Amino acid sequence: MILGLPKEIKDNEYRVGLTPAGVRALKDAGHEVLVEKTAGEGSGFEDNLYQRAGGRIVDSAEEVWATAAMIVKVKEPIAPEYPRMRAGQLLFTYLHLAPDNELTEQLLKRKVTGVAYETITDRRGTLPLLTPMSEVAGRMAIQVGAHYLEKMSGGRGILLGGVPGVPAARVVVLGGGVVGTNAARMAMGLEAHVTVLDVSLPRLYELDLQFGAMLNTIYSTIDTIEENVLAADLVVGAVLLRTRQQVPTGAPAEATATS
Amino acid sequence: MILGLPKEIKDNEYRVGLTPAGVRALKDAGHEVLVEKTAGEGSGFEDNLYQRAGGRIVDSAEEVWATAAMIVKVKEPIAPEYPRMRAGQLLFTYLHLAPDNELTEQLLKRKVTGVAYETITDRRGTLPLLTPMSEVAGRMAIQVGAHYLEKMSGGRGILLGGVPGVPAARVVVLGGGVVGTNAARMAMGLEAHVTVLDVSLPRLYELDLQFGAMLNTIYSTIDTIEENVLAADLVVGAVLLRTRQQVPTGAPAEATATS
Amino acid sequence: MILGLPKEIKDNEYRVGLTPAGVRALKDAGHEVLVEKTAGEGSGFEDNLYQRAGGRIVDSAEEVWATAAMIVKVKEPIAPEYPRMRAGQLLFTYLHLAPDNELTEQLLKRKVTGVAYETITDRRGTLPLLTPMSEVAGRMAIQVGAHYLEKMSGGRGILLGGVPGVPAARVVVLGGGVVGTNAARMAMGLEAHVTVLDVSLPRLYELDLQFGAMLNTIYSTIDTIEENVLAADLVVGAVLLRTRQQVPTGAPAEATATS
Amino acid sequence: MILGLPKEIKDNEYRVGLTPAGVRALKDAGHEVLVEKTAGEGSGFEDNLYQRAGGRIVDSAEEVWATAAMIVKVKEPIAPEYPRMRAGQLLFTYLHLAPDNELTEQLLKRKVTGVAYETITDRRGTLPLLTPMSEVAGRMAIQVGAHYLEKMSGGRGILLGGVPGVPAARVVVLGGGVVGTNAARMAMGLEAHVTVLDVSLPRLYELDLQFGAMLNTIYSTIDTIEENVLAADLVVGAVLLRTRQQVPTGAPAEATATS
Amino acid sequence: MILGLPKEIKDNEYRVGLTPAGVRALKDAGHEVLVEKTAGEGSGFEDNLYQRAGGRIVDSAEEVWATAAMIVKVKEPIAPEYPRMRAGQLLFTYLHLAPDNELTEQLLKRKVTGVAYETITDRRGTLPLLTPMSEVAGRMAIQVGAHYLEKMSGGRGILLGGVPGVPAARVVVLGGGVVGTNAARMAMGLEAHVTVLDVSLPRLYELDLQFGAMLNTIYSTIDTIEENVLAADLVVGAVLLRTRQQVPTGAPAEATATS
Amino acid sequence: MILGLPKEIKDNEYRVGLTPAGVRALKDAGHEVLVEKTAGEGSGFEDNLYQRAGGRIVDSAEEVWATAAMIVKVKEPIAPEYPRMRAGQLLFTYLHLAPDNELTEQLLKRKVTGVAYETITDRRGTLPLLTPMSEVAGRMAIQVGAHYLEKMSGGRGILLGGVPGVPAARVVVLGGGVVGTNAARMAMGLEAHVTVLDVSLPRLYELDLQFGAMLNTIYSTIDTIEENVLAADLVVGAVLLRTRQQVPTGAPAEATATS
Repeated sequence: MILGLPKEIKDNEYRVGLTPAGVRALKDAGHEVLVEKTAGEGSGFEDNLYQRAGGRIVDSAEEVWATAAMIVKVKEPIAPEYPRMRAGQLLFTYLHLAPDNELTEQLLKRKVTGVAYETITDRRGTLPLLTPMSEVAGRMAIQVGAHYLEKMSGGRGILLGGVPGVPAARVVVLGGGVVGTNAARMAMGLEAHVTVLDVSLPRLYELDLQFGAMLNTIYSTIDTIEENVLAADLVVGAVLLRTRQQVPTGAPAEATATS
Repeated sequence: MILGLPKEIKDNEYRVGLTPAGVRALKDAGHEVLVEKTAGEGSGFEDNLYQRAGGRIVDSAEEVWATAAMIVKVKEPIAPEYPRMRAGQLLFTYLHLAPDNELTEQLLKRKVTGVAYETITDRRGTLPLLTPMSEVAGRMAIQVGAHYLEKMSGGRGILLGGVPGVPAARVVVLGGGVVGTNAARMAMGLEAHVTVLDVSLPRLYELDLQFGAMLNTIYSTIDTIEENVLAADLVVGAVLLRTRQQVPTGAPAEATATS
Repeated sequence: MILGLPKEIKDNEYRVGLTPAGVRALKDAGHEVLVEKTAGEGSGFEDNLYQRAGGRIVDSAEEVWATAAMIVKVKEPIAPEYPRMRAGQLLFTYLHLAPDNELTEQLLKRKVTGVAYETITDRRGTLPLLTPMSEVAGRMAIQVGAHYLEKMSGGRGILLGGVPGVPAARVVVLGGGVVGTNAARMAMGLEAHVTVLDVSLPRLYELDLQFGAMLNTIYSTIDTIEENVLAADLVVGAVLLRTRQQVPTGAPAEATATS
Repeated sequence: MILGLPKEIKDNEYRVGLTPAGVRALKDAGHEVLVEKTAGEGSGFEDNLYQRAGGRIVDSAEEVWATAAMIVKVKEPIAPEYPRMRAGQLLFTYLHLAPDNELTEQLLKRKVTGVAYETITDRRGTLPLLTPMSEVAGRMAIQVGAHYLEKMSGGRGILLGGVPGVPAARVVVLGGGVVGTNAARMAMGLEAHVTVLDVSLPRLYELDLQFGAMLNTIYSTIDTIEENVLAADLVVGAVLLRTRQQVPTGAPAEATATS
Repeated sequence: MILGLPKEIKDNEYRVGLTPAGVRALKDAGHEVLVEKTAGEGSGFEDNLYQRAGGRIVDSAEEVWATAAMIVKVKEPIAPEYPRMRAGQLLFTYLHLAPDNELTEQLLKRKVTGVAYETITDRRGTLPLLTPMSEVAGRMAIQVGAHYLEKMSGGRGILLGGVPGVPAARVVVLGGGVVGTNAARMAMGLEAHVTVLDVSLPRLYELDLQFGAMLNTIYSTIDTIEENVLAADLVVGAVLLRTRQQVPTGAPAEATATS
Repeated sequence: MILGLPKEIKDNEYRVGLTPAGVRALKDAGHEVLVEKTAGEGSGFEDNLYQRAGGRIVDSAEEVWATAAMIVKVKEPIAPEYPRMRAGQLLFTYLHLAPDNELTEQLLKRKVTGVAYETITDRRGTLPLLTPMSEVAGRMAIQVGAHYLEKMSGGRGILLGGVPGVPAARVVVLGGGVVGTNAARMAMGLEAHVTVLDVSLPRLYELDLQFGAMLNTIYSTIDTIEENVLAADLVVGAVLLRTRQQVPTGAPAEATATS
């Protein structure tokens, strides 16, 4: 199959749909990959890396969209990309159609088959293409929070881990799923006083087993949320509400709701 | 030299001055050891263990005291033992003479040379024969405290480490010396929320380096003591006040004073 | 729905069926909660906390039972409570009917629908309302055991973790389920030499992965039980025998049997 | 003695020379403390906290300087403060006189006795009033570095700890003293790949013992610096060069020089 | 049932099909066990241990095979054992029939029912009788590798963990299943720099959660394999390729394939 | 100064006195370094690395010895090297003169100033040039021991760490100095059951603080040595006996004697 890798054009999007290693793996499996010139630049992948991996560099996005049977992207197509979509073309990317009526209609009108990363479910009912994003989000949350607690950033001048003699800051993480666990881990790593609240006792049991005395696990109720959030120096919201019908049968509720 | 090992007769004292291993080491070094019958019973050492180690079992305390050039005990002699002490005899035991005027006079009158365990100082200025007692005391403190927090013992029904979903109890340790460090270790082991206060920042730095995010170290002031003690579920006092002239030059202040 | 929270009247039962936070959550979900005067006292919850959470304090158990459509308790009803039960009433509590013929007949006769905590099963086939009890039991086992090993409690004067220079005590835990894992964790925390025996190799593998070199895992046979129990200073029995038909299909055998 | 606590007026200096707890301790020891109005505001200490601790709030810096026998500050006096200094007055603050000819002359001319925090040496030859600053500096270094590696801050879009499947970033710390150890700890906490270089093998041995397999320790030579710095994603300089005559006899060289 | 335990006769096979503890358990369950003389010698189990466990020692392999309804072995039968197999006999051992045409025909011809350890699957779809072998293999891999890196064994004179000041060796483990995890654990234990590559992101996520900053997890592609293997001091191959139809429905792919 | 780096000629000696990095540092400090052709080959340093570092490659050992004012070696000179030594020459190497009468006389006769690595003492009284050798020795001890416990090497077929379900092997380390600590660390890393015996309680206290529940520390007496060594699967001797006069005043006894 011919795959196409156009450069992302949405604001502040530096990622790219395939790394050179990904191109090599596809090439190795017998496919051809068209790579738009400088598509990987924002992620530090020069064109020659794609070429060495077997990709073919093409000069324009138009050419990529016109030739490829399947387009691999990061973000949903935006207005300038609509006319490039072709009937029968496969589009593999984050789509988030729910709030985007226009894109939905464009896909229908142009007869494009979209496969949205955020909906792909594995045998366990989890969302494997969202997990890495959740990991990054949880880890970033702490370093961003630490930054905004600095006096220079307008914060209260608090260091998450304190220093010997000075107590650590209190980090409260709402939700013990992938985002929350990764946030808690980084906050523990910076030696903060970390508390995770969750409505799932089995999940709190797992976290307690994993992190022992370093992590405080508290059953989430209106009361405990109020008490802990009000006493916190940094709060990380890590709850994903999924309506019941979205949860595949037999799936653990990865991110849990707190009312 | 002939050493004597009398049985302790003070109330609730189950220890014995020498283990069979100790007797063997002394024997090996060319000494003779007289062991009073059943001297080691309270510590689980039967007479035959002392015999196998080379000790000679004798029937009465009187015989031990009458024969040995050096007596090895645990506790200071009490009234029934005074008349057994002989001029020129060496007495190796905990003495704690300061508050015990009568014993002091007995030793002087009977010309006994007492070497008090609690005063023996090593090259670093620490008290090596007190250290194991401090270790035991610190470790016991937590298990005794845990016991008295049980509802059945009249406590508030609090489990030091909580369980998943329920926050851990707050243990506050005043002083970060040997007693305090051992208490803190056991409390961390039971997964409590542990805070050590000390007036020595270098000591807090060492504790922080050793135990990382699991231990809270707070500089001890009237304010921080008040705040932490009042919020604690269990408080361990682990401060030894030594007047300045007692501190050997160059010695680290192992147990630190909090005003 | 109107829920009722009577005070427990069984001997030595200090717990209460709902915390104020629980009452608030129910209130928030549109229910009404009647709380018997001083119901939460044994657990440290004053009446005013229930009031602030939205509960209505009533003066007698009779009133609670007479008004509520569902009764939330901790322990099974005992004789004085039988006549208070009303036809059609829901009873949510630990019931343990198997050995209690009279209570079973009372429930049938009075047409009460009992929902026993100990029988509620989640999607994974585990018993979520027993788990916290097992956690508490396992953790308490070690602190109670440590207490009874003290000389003052009639024990052999052994400190679980020893001190530097003196070997740690040997703790043997029979069964690696929730009770056993929590017991083992506390025993490791007190720095004992801890061994878990279980008939499930996959469970031993999980424990070994979790606790590494700190925990000894041994496959349970008559031989290994004999050898380890006889050499132990403290033995924790943590085996729950479930007959095969009780184990839901697809459920991991949480507590495992050793013959 | 009457102590004075003026508000800091240097740019971006939010700290204050004494906390309320410090004031209370001084008061308790029989001293009086004058606190300039809002002196503690930048550090989150309201005037009433100082009052409750026994301090007396005064309206102007002039009054503090005019009355107090000893001034406690954070930063060295700057031009507007020169005329406030009085003959015989004690000044306790960071001074850093070496590069500040004018301040040196002002102190001499006005006959003020300055005690510089940065020169106070304890029995071990370390600088106890610099240590907490070094701890803060080392810990901040990593969080500041993490911030500047973010794409949004103009960095290469690297997360220090990576995520599962993506390698961690390489953090190289030059010097294994207080700054370096604290930086390394935070970087390990964020799960980076951390290397410390130092010219002191005994120091590397201590670090290796403390942090085990999580920390790479490399003997510092021109070669190893070149190799490691060039391969690093983040480099922390944590070397303090002290000329030989500055090192007190018998003192460990806390921060070590790398040529 | 009468079980038979013949001595293994294949080269370099020191193991034995049942330990004395196993014999005792079978005896306890009402079975009889015939043990060939010295069958357990290679594993350190003397005949008298089997006798004490209730086994009956017999003088020859022939007698064992002739009498027992079920034979318990370690390795597949080899030529001298073929004629001993009897119609209707149960044979419980590792069989690995796929590459062994002759053994397959012998079993068919002699109407023996072979149950191969390596094919027994539990409810989760894993292979419980292979797991312990994989654990041993993974752990041995590192100690064998360490041995061959010694100068005396013809290696490059590299110590896996380095020493303070000298960087650790790089160990690369291909595959994060049972073998790989055990190998990685031992390599981390020896303080090497350890990297696991796997094609399963969820597995990498689990490993990352378990081992944190001590383990590098990298998604396996042709590129990352090339890069890491070429830079490694020691490579452990821990990949088991199972064709799709071999994987039981619902089973996690324990050992994962890398193309 | 002109330094000379001859190739080692003693059997099985693959090391070299200076690495290229060492040569570079000396060059940088203004010295000249003559390197004998292929001197670094056994350690993996090609001649061109020395050249790049600023060393001058010379063709023969004779030329190195004839030109250099100071010779840097690993091992003491052996017979063929005696005639190369010149009056006034400095010789920096391991010398171990005590048992080597001939070498001592050669040095005296040829008026060479030998500085023996093994006698160089730092301010703390430790032997910094022996420490790295002790680290290597301690770490190697475990991997060599593990090797010889393999069945293939004639051992009892014991894996140090056992596997889940099978107990770990017992490793006993005599002496808690540098060798013993490093051996214990590696043994703990391989998940063995590790015990260190030492006659210094303060040293046992440090080890206990460092390694917690993972390490058993036992006070060394004839009895405890007997008991532990007899029960061990692997014993590491790590005791260095220094006669009292060899111990510098104020020095900690790094390696401790057990009678």
